[in-house]
Amino acid sequence: MTETVKSTLPDKERRIAGEALQDTLVDLLGLSLIGKQAHWTVVGPRFRSIHLQLDEIVSSARAFSDTVAERAAALGVPPDGRPATVAASFSLPGPEDGWLRDTEAIELMATSLEQSIGRLRHRIEATEEADPVTQDLLITITAELEKQRWMFDAENWPRSQ
Amino acid sequence: MTETVKSTLPDKERRIAGEALQDTLVDLLGLSLIGKQAHWTVVGPRFRSIHLQLDEIVSSARAFSDTVAERAAALGVPPDGRPATVAASFSLPGPEDGWLRDTEAIELMATSLEQSIGRLRHRIEATEEADPVTQDLLITITAELEKQRWMFDAENWPRSQ
Amino acid sequence: MTETVKSTLPDKERRIAGEALQDTLVDLLGLSLIGKQAHWTVVGPRFRSIHLQLDEIVSSARAFSDTVAERAAALGVPPDGRPATVAASFSLPGPEDGWLRDTEAIELMATSLEQSIGRLRHRIEATEEADPVTQDLLITITAELEKQRWMFDAENWPRSQ
Amino acid sequence: MTETVKSTLPDKERRIAGEALQDTLVDLLGLSLIGKQAHWTVVGPRFRSIHLQLDEIVSSARAFSDTVAERAAALGVPPDGRPATVAASFSLPGPEDGWLRDTEAIELMATSLEQSIGRLRHRIEATEEADPVTQDLLITITAELEKQRWMFDAENWPRSQ
Amino acid sequence: MTETVKSTLPDKERRIAGEALQDTLVDLLGLSLIGKQAHWTVVGPRFRSIHLQLDEIVSSARAFSDTVAERAAALGVPPDGRPATVAASFSLPGPEDGWLRDTEAIELMATSLEQSIGRLRHRIEATEEADPVTQDLLITITAELEKQRWMFDAENWPRSQ
Amino acid sequence: MTETVKSTLPDKERRIAGEALQDTLVDLLGLSLIGKQAHWTVVGPRFRSIHLQLDEIVSSARAFSDTVAERAAALGVPPDGRPATVAASFSLPGPEDGWLRDTEAIELMATSLEQSIGRLRHRIEATEEADPVTQDLLITITAELEKQRWMFDAENWPRSQ
Amino acid sequence: MTETVKSTLPDKERRIAGEALQDTLVDLLGLSLIGKQAHWTVVGPRFRSIHLQLDEIVSSARAFSDTVAERAAALGVPPDGRPATVAASFSLPGPEDGWLRDTEAIELMATSLEQSIGRLRHRIEATEEADPVTQDLLITITAELEKQRWMFDAENWPRSQ
Amino acid sequence: MTETVKSTLPDKERRIAGEALQDTLVDLLGLSLIGKQAHWTVVGPRFRSIHLQLDEIVSSARAFSDTVAERAAALGVPPDGRPATVAASFSLPGPEDGWLRDTEAIELMATSLEQSIGRLRHRIEATEEADPVTQDLLITITAELEKQRWMFDAENWPRSQ
Amino acid sequence: MTETVKSTLPDKERRIAGEALQDTLVDLLGLSLIGKQAHWTVVGPRFRSIHLQLDEIVSSARAFSDTVAERAAALGVPPDGRPATVAASFSLPGPEDGWLRDTEAIELMATSLEQSIGRLRHRIEATEEADPVTQDLLITITAELEKQRWMFDAENWPRSQ
Amino acid sequence: MTETVKSTLPDKERRIAGEALQDTLVDLLGLSLIGKQAHWTVVGPRFRSIHLQLDEIVSSARAFSDTVAERAAALGVPPDGRPATVAASFSLPGPEDGWLRDTEAIELMATSLEQSIGRLRHRIEATEEADPVTQDLLITITAELEKQRWMFDAENWPRSQ
Amino acid sequence: MTETVKSTLPDKERRIAGEALQDTLVDLLGLSLIGKQAHWTVVGPRFRSIHLQLDEIVSSARAFSDTVAERAAALGVPPDGRPATVAASFSLPGPEDGWLRDTEAIELMATSLEQSIGRLRHRIEATEEADPVTQDLLITITAELEKQRWMFDAENWPRSQ
Amino acid sequence: MTETVKSTLPDKERRIAGEALQDTLVDLLGLSLIGKQAHWTVVGPRFRSIHLQLDEIVSSARAFSDTVAERAAALGVPPDGRPATVAASFSLPGPEDGWLRDTEAIELMATSLEQSIGRLRHRIEATEEADPVTQDLLITITAELEKQRWMFDAENWPRSQ
Repeated sequence: MTETVKSTLPDKERRIAGEALQDTLVDLLGLSLIGKQAHWTVVGPRFRSIHLQLDEIVSSARAFSDTVAERAAALGVPPDGRPATVAASFSLPGPEDGWLRDTEAIELMATSLEQSIGRLRHRIEATEEADPVTQDLLITITAELEKQRWMFDAENWPRSQ
Repeated sequence: MTETVKSTLPDKERRIAGEALQDTLVDLLGLSLIGKQAHWTVVGPRFRSIHLQLDEIVSSARAFSDTVAERAAALGVPPDGRPATVAASFSLPGPEDGWLRDTEAIELMATSLEQSIGRLRHRIEATEEADPVTQDLLITITAELEKQRWMFDAENWPRSQ
Repeated sequence: MTETVKSTLPDKERRIAGEALQDTLVDLLGLSLIGKQAHWTVVGPRFRSIHLQLDEIVSSARAFSDTVAERAAALGVPPDGRPATVAASFSLPGPEDGWLRDTEAIELMATSLEQSIGRLRHRIEATEEADPVTQDLLITITAELEKQRWMFDAENWPRSQ
Repeated sequence: MTETVKSTLPDKERRIAGEALQDTLVDLLGLSLIGKQAHWTVVGPRFRSIHLQLDEIVSSARAFSDTVAERAAALGVPPDGRPATVAASFSLPGPEDGWLRDTEAIELMATSLEQSIGRLRHRIEATEEADPVTQDLLITITAELEKQRWMFDAENWPRSQ
Repeated sequence: MTETVKSTLPDKERRIAGEALQDTLVDLLGLSLIGKQAHWTVVGPRFRSIHLQLDEIVSSARAFSDTVAERAAALGVPPDGRPATVAASFSLPGPEDGWLRDTEAIELMATSLEQSIGRLRHRIEATEEADPVTQDLLITITAELEKQRWMFDAENWPRSQ
Repeated sequence: MTETVKSTLPDKERRIAGEALQDTLVDLLGLSLIGKQAHWTVVGPRFRSIHLQLDEIVSSARAFSDTVAERAAALGVPPDGRPATVAASFSLPGPEDGWLRDTEAIELMATSLEQSIGRLRHRIEATEEADPVTQDLLITITAELEKQRWMFDAENWPRSQ
Repeated sequence: MTETVKSTLPDKERRIAGEALQDTLVDLLGLSLIGKQAHWTVVGPRFRSIHLQLDEIVSSARAFSDTVAERAAALGVPPDGRPATVAASFSLPGPEDGWLRDTEAIELMATSLEQSIGRLRHRIEATEEADPVTQDLLITITAELEKQRWMFDAENWPRSQ
Repeated sequence: MTETVKSTLPDKERRIAGEALQDTLVDLLGLSLIGKQAHWTVVGPRFRSIHLQLDEIVSSARAFSDTVAERAAALGVPPDGRPATVAASFSLPGPEDGWLRDTEAIELMATSLEQSIGRLRHRIEATEEADPVTQDLLITITAELEKQRWMFDAENWPRSQ
Repeated sequence: MTETVKSTLPDKERRIAGEALQDTLVDLLGLSLIGKQAHWTVVGPRFRSIHLQLDEIVSSARAFSDTVAERAAALGVPPDGRPATVAASFSLPGPEDGWLRDTEAIELMATSLEQSIGRLRHRIEATEEADPVTQDLLITITAELEKQRWMFDAENWPRSQ
Repeated sequence: MTETVKSTLPDKERRIAGEALQDTLVDLLGLSLIGKQAHWTVVGPRFRSIHLQLDEIVSSARAFSDTVAERAAALGVPPDGRPATVAASFSLPGPEDGWLRDTEAIELMATSLEQSIGRLRHRIEATEEADPVTQDLLITITAELEKQRWMFDAENWPRSQ
Repeated sequence: MTETVKSTLPDKERRIAGEALQDTLVDLLGLSLIGKQAHWTVVGPRFRSIHLQLDEIVSSARAFSDTVAERAAALGVPPDGRPATVAASFSLPGPEDGWLRDTEAIELMATSLEQSIGRLRHRIEATEEADPVTQDLLITITAELEKQRWMFDAENWPRSQ
Repeated sequence: MTETVKSTLPDKERRIAGEALQDTLVDLLGLSLIGKQAHWTVVGPRFRSIHLQLDEIVSSARAFSDTVAERAAALGVPPDGRPATVAASFSLPGPEDGWLRDTEAIELMATSLEQSIGRLRHRIEATEEADPVTQDLLITITAELEKQRWMFDAENWPRSQ
């Protein structure tokens, strides 16, 4: 059934945009899962502040994952956000099993966000010619993740030196 | 750091409740992922109706997964909702790769919900002695999933005969 | 078409829960109708206060009747809330034809609520083994009706001595 | 106590308006009950769409029944919306016992609404001289029920040919 | 400047509609002032209930007075709601100086509303030919005031016998 | 497919009501388009005030056009609001190409509204016997447009002398 | 019944505060009536802007009149806001009969507000010793009316030179 | 008066952006009109679902038409959205006269949206150099219309094969 | 740790303001507790009206207690609202054990409020020189409590004679 | 007046449930008072975070205390939440006089909540037979307090080792 | 144009109040700018908590600056809040260039607020005779800034010793 | 501490984006201050309309200044929005001391906005290569300021010729 939904893009452009969106989808679903994991298992003096901050990332990641997946569908590319796919493709660092110190949670999120941003910037370049509509969405996501990353980085000071 | 957060339950009761909660967490996170997957890839004459209905399940599953994981933490048991854990432990049927016919989406969700309810009813029994507070939460989740299952089953008629 | 929607309960349990829900449905629909009747026909110095109070019961009774009927459907039991069924099965005391004195309205509602609570308590016992999910719903309804009954009873003082 | 609340209309006009309102009250309460019945027991591929649509009729019917009954009271005529009265006086077609096919639910509601509209149009004529205030309320109700009827009729196509 | 705003009605019809609206304006502004007066000065066991009920009449009367005056302006007739005009033209019974017993407040409002309704019904007849748009507004106001009157009358029982 | 949706009116009455509604639909859609046109192109010292005022007319005209078209459908008459129909049938004065002086915008809207009201008053008469429900809707629309016309006329003073 | 509600102030202080509040009540009710009168009858190029601005004064005046009258009641002094009292005691300038030019409306409101502020400032002094709670309320009202006066005065420029 | 509002763009760029915006305005106004037409005249088993879905497109098209026209004005180009202009310039396929089968409505909207997207993609290219601010707006509109198109296309399956 | 938070007032003024605030805190916390006690235990024909009225006092008392305590903290004075302190320092009359007649509840609240107002008026005087900011807060609280007292007193008539 | 409000429970069951509810009421009112006390007097680097967190406990404790007391009343048992009763019966640890270090506030609340939970679990057992409706309420309260306790405990790490 | 807006105060009083308001305006605008500066540049473990807290001060300072400037205008004194004026007149301590440690941010705000409060208290005295309305506004601002100062001071502990 | 927060951009790109953002920050803070200044000091017949319009610009400018400054921080560049920096760097025309004629206010804002837009368009070009995420934000701001400029320019007609 792969050809079911027609695309408004030619094949090549659809493939480029489709890959960028699928990879972004996995990153965002993964971030939403590890964000929640840290939200639940964080301990330490800064528990409450980080507990709340993590929910904001999860909320952003969930909302963007929906937009990204529906954009793929709109281009005739069925997105894949099933548990096994996310687990197999997600490559950003995440928390260990068990409780998580607050300082580790902050450093972990700053690092994961930084890596996801680097990947997004490559996709912004890759989609510029293929589909400026998809590119615009990736730019919007990058702006939000860079804002979130700054907050964790500012909070990480002076340990991150 | 497993002993970090104190429990209000004795060891045995905590273990029983903790297992029930962890298993429920995986089911709910898995349901939220496959619900979204079907939300994005469903095609057919009933697209819009099912697209919207699936978002209600995802919304319920996400909200309950948060309550369940925080209840585990409240009992001193760190929950595990990381991508690899969900992928490894989730055993309910989910959609195939690619687009999904509307009739298949309905049957799939009815089946997955039915199986998750059967598992929840066992956990309701298992936690009755160990922790009535956890049991009460599992009862609330079951009521909601049974309502959702009925709607898909009613919609599945007369094909499910 | 009685077997149309599958049940998540075995036959015997489904029958017990189904009966408890059907009987509760009739009581709640009946209460919503006699509550409105009194809301419209009450006269006397306490008119406004009781007129408003009755709408709160009607609102609760309508909301619970929906939950109860959908719970029956979720268990594969088609509920019956048609006019003839309600009229034939409803056995709680209701207002006479015509205008209704405020003192009588209060006494009537206190009595009807008290009787409906007694019946609910029997159903709570009856469903404990058969279906704790249904039992939990009946407990919730009882809590609300007992609160409403207290308010009418407190208002009925000192006449109720 | 029938003369308890004074009327702002002479006897004859009050009787005409009172009868029109009482008959409308029974139709609306009956519609709200059979609408809910179908809301709970409908099955088939269009389940969700009709389940939601039926709640809109129930909501309209309940709101109008309150306005109609309070208008009767305002004219010094105590309305009668008790279970036995509704069951005895309600003459519009309603669903059978048990589950209800979606196509039957649609046809049933289209028919019941059509009949109730025909009756309302007679009451609009009957009250024109007696009480233009009551007439205006009946016109408002007719507009809403005709809109609801059209929707079911449009949905019934091409079966209704 | 009397001809400043053009009318959409011929002269005779404008005069009839204009008079009906001006008289209604005075009644409504007067009702809003005596309603507030009673709201502030009522005493007795039913203080709170009547205090709140009176504010609902004031709120209705103020909103309708605005609609009525703007309708007059829309017909090219400048309305007159100045203090001296209201005082000179208002002829419905109002409260005495000083505190007001709750039973008197109820009787007073029931009487004032009854008289204002009688006057409105004459204006409904008078405007039927001249301007059905104005007539429709007067019908709407009558419906609301008759509802309010019933409530005070029901509350007045059994003293009003 | 013209007979697809059944009517609740006999043929002759349906034709009269259907024509009144179709003509009103064109007037309202036309008003919403020229209102927006003036909203975008108005210039002059009163720009902001008129820019906002025009959006209120557009909002009313759009809402009423929906009600009018759905009322036609409810009577079994398919409405026609397609671009070519609106352009061909719309006969009220509208703005020229390009920017529009604020004084001209005001005079234009006052004139267009005045003409549309004159047409509505004829339809109110025409539908009185055929369908009082349709008539009541036309009365409501007239009340709103007359209010809007007054505001532009009052604003047009003293130029309109 | 003048002594019905007890005062929390000694006789002399109650008399001083009571007079200040009664006089303020008349000014505010009068302002609300002439503000509405101008709201309805204003014509001219600034119609819409002033029409809206006048409703803000009316809204403030109505809200403060309620607070002022309830404060009098709270001090055991029954307030008097009946039509005849307002007409007899209100001494601020108001609009003439008929339509009102926009420039006159602005000048009129600026003048009426200025005079009412002068009177409030005397009452602020008069109540300083007698009742600082009443004084604080009068200060709050003055702040709002001075803000409203400034806006009309700024709008009146350069005519007010 | 064509030069009335100054532009922030040089002549050539203004002309390119102005044309792209004017053409988009006509497409969006046309879509809003044919979307409503289908909303009113659709019949068939999927009536309710499509009736609601069409209102979402109309809502988007109306909001974007406003933004597009105001952007043209902001660039010193008076937009043209008058009935005759829309009728003359609109070239997307729309519904026939009379009732519209649900399957045809879906296919029609999928086709119209697809064509409008193709046109928008050309304008995105055309405005890249001339005005990136206008381009960004066109990208946003394309994203929304592509999402709407996917939904109709997904719903059209398997008929669209 | 008493000197932990710096004060913006000199020692003497801080002491005066601190005492006034601490005493007011105890009165308000006490009022909120006895208000709730009466809210729960009141019986009699006026039950509902008083039950609701008491919650308004509790709500005011709780909100003001927070403002008062935070004002003390802002002046460098740690407030004391612990159970033992409230019980030891609270001196206003409160309800007996068990159920409370409605007439007694009204009289009790009128008396307690009257006494608390007398105490507040002394503190208003005491803080005038020491801290006008604290004085202004006490004036605001007095205005609200005097309004509440009036309502109970008006309701108490004619028994309070 | 102890027998004033009838109970829906037999004597023995009412006594058991009544005691459980009265003891819970004292714990919750005490928690709300010491929570506020800590809210006002906490100092240290985590001031803002804990200040806000404490208000959430106070809010929960106040809401539950109302539900618990009204449940006692609904069972015919007058609750006792007067200042002296709370002070005499409250046995959970609370803050000392004066300012409170943030680390102490956290430890204090974790301890108080832990003890209150232990007591609630005994009452859950005690009421299982006597009144499942009361038991269900106690389970709900326990779930919330255990969640709050976990948050303070997680925040207390690593000091709590 | 300095005399353009009339004052309701004599010259001397206007000058005193005008100076107090102008000086307060500069302090508040300055506080809003340095509060935002710290909001953007703060780093350290308490980043999130302080980042949010600073926005509350900015929000208060902006709202009060508007009220203060409009009060000056209402007294016929044109306020001056232009960039150069704020820069030249603002004398409270603010952050250095670049990133700002969280501990420094807290100490800085506590100090700036303390100084601004000292200046406000002088203006409260200075305006007591000249204009109690202006004084009342300054008292309100002082209450809010003292509350904000306490929170930073409490957070600064034990470093501030 | 300049290197405290890491950047997601290389040095050169960070410098380019950082400068564009810092310059935009100063323009927006400056616009918000002169917008408020004109909001407070404007006089003339169009006072109210412009007073309100200016607050919309201030609101936009404040919101964008926050987004711009946080974007700089997200790129590791500490923004500078302190009073002295704004005063020294702000170069757009602003109002003189004292009252401001309404015609001057309009011309002033049209000019300032036009100049700020010209500067933004240069920064859009400058950041295209360096950081498309920053560029996208500048495009969004330009779109809003161009819309605001058009409104003032349209209002300035025919004086701006």
